[in-house]
Amino acid sequence: MRLIDKPVSHFLDELASSAPAPGGGSVAALSGALGAALISMVCNLTLGKRGYEEVQGDIEDLLAQAEALRKELTDLLEADVAAYTAYSQAAKLPRETEEQKAVRSEAMQNALKNATLVPMRIAEAAVKVMDLCMPVAEKGNKFAVSDAGVAVLMAEASLRSAALNVLINLGTLKDEAFVAEKRQQLDSLLAGKGELRDQIYDYVAARL
Amino acid sequence: MRLIDKPVSHFLDELASSAPAPGGGSVAALSGALGAALISMVCNLTLGKRGYEEVQGDIEDLLAQAEALRKELTDLLEADVAAYTAYSQAAKLPRETEEQKAVRSEAMQNALKNATLVPMRIAEAAVKVMDLCMPVAEKGNKFAVSDAGVAVLMAEASLRSAALNVLINLGTLKDEAFVAEKRQQLDSLLAGKGELRDQIYDYVAARL
Repeated sequence: MRLIDKPVSHFLDELASSAPAPGGGSVAALSGALGAALISMVCNLTLGKRGYEEVQGDIEDLLAQAEALRKELTDLLEADVAAYTAYSQAAKLPRETEEQKAVRSEAMQNALKNATLVPMRIAEAAVKVMDLCMPVAEKGNKFAVSDAGVAVLMAEASLRSAALNVLINLGTLKDEAFVAEKRQQLDSLLAGKGELRDQIYDYVAARL
Repeated sequence: MRLIDKPVSHFLDELASSAPAPGGGSVAALSGALGAALISMVCNLTLGKRGYEEVQGDIEDLLAQAEALRKELTDLLEADVAAYTAYSQAAKLPRETEEQKAVRSEAMQNALKNATLVPMRIAEAAVKVMDLCMPVAEKGNKFAVSDAGVAVLMAEASLRSAALNVLINLGTLKDEAFVAEKRQQLDSLLAGKGELRDQIYDYVAARL
């Protein structure tokens, strides 16, 4: 059963439990999906509404992008748990002989690389959700402008949560070239996003 | 059926739809509940663990606080939808005679006040979740420190999302004394919380 098929209350219970997955990585993905869903909501409250005739094409385009990102982020929520499970299984491989130790170590490093790529994709998708927030705040139904503000807060929290999950894995990876590349990629995803969040938040708050 | 009894995917679908509730207020509450659940997870990964004998009492106390806040925030998620529904119903009251208009206007103002108090309570609970994050990051299982970082990101996003939902209601309330009091209360809840978030995030990131 997929995590997103479970009731919200069960998801929260499993999160709170000592089971290591779902954990912060799944929350990062869910936070981004919540942001994308709020963008869609503002778009859906704008389509066909009087006074918004001139932006219908833009809103349809924003809605399509938000829905694609919501799907991607809910898929990544499941992928994060799968990546963690694969790592746990690699860690359980036998380690009695030198050969077994080498096989186990390589399997764990490969699983860790995948466990790093998943939150990196979450971070990329979260940035794309952030990029939809200002256009939606400017063009969407003005009675739902606060929802565009909540969307950017959730998307930026998703980005930074994903970043923490990338960093925790980079700390135990031995492939220095991979680590350097991913660290640089992450820095460039994070650059200026706190300011973008505050800019959109202030724009929204000034309209309430 | 309560919103939190619905599958996560249905919650996201309803959020994305043109139905105005659930909206940003529910997301504010959910974000805080996700933060509280992550605090509980770190605590549950610390209880009974070797090397953490000296902090067991503190962790038990933090867990109890996190679980109480999680319950409060999931209740507030439902309360936010109920408050919106009550406001919508007040808006549908008849307004043909002067007397009907006066009755409707008063009912709407009362419903708006309640719709303001719910996100204010979300903001208060979110601040309390934030206050648990640094102790848990410092004392909890070090392998779960990134989850304490995600917790503070979700709790601060909850606080600021709730703030937007307070502000949108204050903008249409006529009781100036109420508005001034709530605006001051909100300012004091928000003061310094961005800095607290960054401080905990940096503490966590430095340990990954």
